[in-house]
Amino acid sequence: MSDFSSLALPHVVKLHAYTPGLQPTESGWVKLNTNECPYPPSPRVAAAIRAELAEDGERLRLYPNPKSTPLRQQIAKIHGIREENVLIGNGSDDVLNLLVRVFGGPAAATGFTLPSYSLYPVLVAIQDGATSVIEFDRSMKLPVAKIAASGARAFFLTSPNAPTGVAFSNAELADVLTRFPGVLVVDEAYAPFAKENAVPLLAKHPNLVITRTLSKAHALAGIRVGYALADAGVIDLLDRVRDSYNVNRLSQAAASAALADPGYYDAIIGKIIHTRDYWLGEWGVRLGWFTYESQSNFIFTEPKNGRGESGPAVAKALYDFLLSRRILVRAFPNHALTASFLRISVGSDDEMFAVNSAIEAWLKIAP
Amino acid sequence: MSDFSSLALPHVVKLHAYTPGLQPTESGWVKLNTNECPYPPSPRVAAAIRAELAEDGERLRLYPNPKSTPLRQQIAKIHGIREENVLIGNGSDDVLNLLVRVFGGPAAATGFTLPSYSLYPVLVAIQDGATSVIEFDRSMKLPVAKIAASGARAFFLTSPNAPTGVAFSNAELADVLTRFPGVLVVDEAYAPFAKENAVPLLAKHPNLVITRTLSKAHALAGIRVGYALADAGVIDLLDRVRDSYNVNRLSQAAASAALADPGYYDAIIGKIIHTRDYWLGEWGVRLGWFTYESQSNFIFTEPKNGRGESGPAVAKALYDFLLSRRILVRAFPNHALTASFLRISVGSDDEMFAVNSAIEAWLKIAP
Repeated sequence: MSDFSSLALPHVVKLHAYTPGLQPTESGWVKLNTNECPYPPSPRVAAAIRAELAEDGERLRLYPNPKSTPLRQQIAKIHGIREENVLIGNGSDDVLNLLVRVFGGPAAATGFTLPSYSLYPVLVAIQDGATSVIEFDRSMKLPVAKIAASGARAFFLTSPNAPTGVAFSNAELADVLTRFPGVLVVDEAYAPFAKENAVPLLAKHPNLVITRTLSKAHALAGIRVGYALADAGVIDLLDRVRDSYNVNRLSQAAASAALADPGYYDAIIGKIIHTRDYWLGEWGVRLGWFTYESQSNFIFTEPKNGRGESGPAVAKALYDFLLSRRILVRAFPNHALTASFLRISVGSDDEMFAVNSAIEAWLKIAP
Repeated sequence: MSDFSSLALPHVVKLHAYTPGLQPTESGWVKLNTNECPYPPSPRVAAAIRAELAEDGERLRLYPNPKSTPLRQQIAKIHGIREENVLIGNGSDDVLNLLVRVFGGPAAATGFTLPSYSLYPVLVAIQDGATSVIEFDRSMKLPVAKIAASGARAFFLTSPNAPTGVAFSNAELADVLTRFPGVLVVDEAYAPFAKENAVPLLAKHPNLVITRTLSKAHALAGIRVGYALADAGVIDLLDRVRDSYNVNRLSQAAASAALADPGYYDAIIGKIIHTRDYWLGEWGVRLGWFTYESQSNFIFTEPKNGRGESGPAVAKALYDFLLSRRILVRAFPNHALTASFLRISVGSDDEMFAVNSAIEAWLKIAP
């Protein structure tokens, strides 16, 4: 490190960056490691981008709509709320970052559970923020009383949770919202795959912030659009911290086109849920692997080898075996409750059968 | 403000957001207020976006390259430096924000000049950071000794400066870099229109950070791409604070295509410089309005009314007159050195003649 980088703030010098899932650039991978959608986005998306380009991309010379206003209005209408209750981000990670910057600091703890989306602690560390960490137990039941007593200004809860896929009911969330005196951020990245979502709770609970992304169910991880739904006062604060042109023209157009085609997405979400439930049965029941009931687009399962053993070494052995067959899944070796598991994104039928064949082969050769 | 937004950090509650220039959504405006390029981007840009879309936008379902690696490599090659010396941002505003988060805080002052790009104080305020503000005088000469003694960890200098258009020479910048013990961020948003740029200083000065944008000379304000060139240690710190997927797929493709077509951009930059210099002569010499020698794509001029008077009221009168003719320029009423001026982005010939006709009309009717 050079002399001048030592001028950086001490907590930044100590930071460990978030490690995103591997994004191989060559083809030939069965890529089930970052919960992308196996199906293409609505054909309206490419059409909308081509329309925004027109012939020569002339409009790209102009700044985008700073507040993504048409998209805010459209999303408000979809959820039956008002424009002032919506904020658009450069991916929901942008929105999560803004939330931490508004509510979290050295003297204002940010709460989250373990295990959960591993970006939260990184965002808090960038802010040199205090944390309040609530551990799940293996039941993955929501620790309502502990969250209520966490002392956090803002508490981040992923529902359905990652990497487990376990969803929390609106009854449980309402219980937290009533008892917790801070802001509850319900990160609904995977809510389109769940039985319930928290939007109906917004009207009654001004301390609820919901975040959504178009990266998963809407097959648009490549365009980086997410959003927040919240009380107008909270949205106003987020807007002050937000970059004034955070979402580019093409992404605004793409997101708008996707959200205008719910029929297309209902169909692919239905297909993904069907595929998920089939393989939950195959691996969870037929193979007898402990597997959480997923309400997301991934399966979190605890592999057993041919001798019926499970554990971190077994999970790693299967991970490596799949990798050797150019199948990418995700391992979470850093927490006792996740180290024995693998998270497998729900892919196309071909991809899932490829994973299953590899598992069958591994079961035959694994010691 | 609701009860729950009062949980926000005190400095956030007091924040004033950055006010971007007006971005009218209806057509019919002569829009010369945010220094956009009057010409379309290289035709290769639209072609590259169409190629990335392919038929149905299938690739958009996948996350983008997290580090924009191919773009870093391409930019490194263009500037004759190494990939490890380049970082890509969601616009250069993203890069500036990261720099403030790495170096600035309550106990680590961030420096900037007044007048300058008005985003800097907002970014520092979001961070609750201390500031060290150096005032120009009307000569707009670089206050080298004051910057050297500013006590800032990082000092932000726009060159050519905004809103004046005045550029600082590499000799002056080298003088600052040698005498100033902090990190000097030279914001080169307008450097493609200048006689010189600071890139040759990078090799000798590890405390130099250069930021660039594709929003101005490259006619791509709508796609949000900017970058930093710096010592590898500084880039590494910025990467830790950077959002892991900050630049979407289409913008990476667009930026890469633009930067691969220097011939196209040399031509339009040459045209803009030619137009700028013509109107510097018309307004600065023929009308006798005090006008800084611009090395940017805008003209910062102090209008005189028909009676030869200048001042804030005169500037406002012309601003309003132009607005009534659907011509948008930019006024900076909040600083004594800028309140008597208007900043007029260099547009197409038609746009500039429209401004000039309006000025001639105003001179006839203005009291």
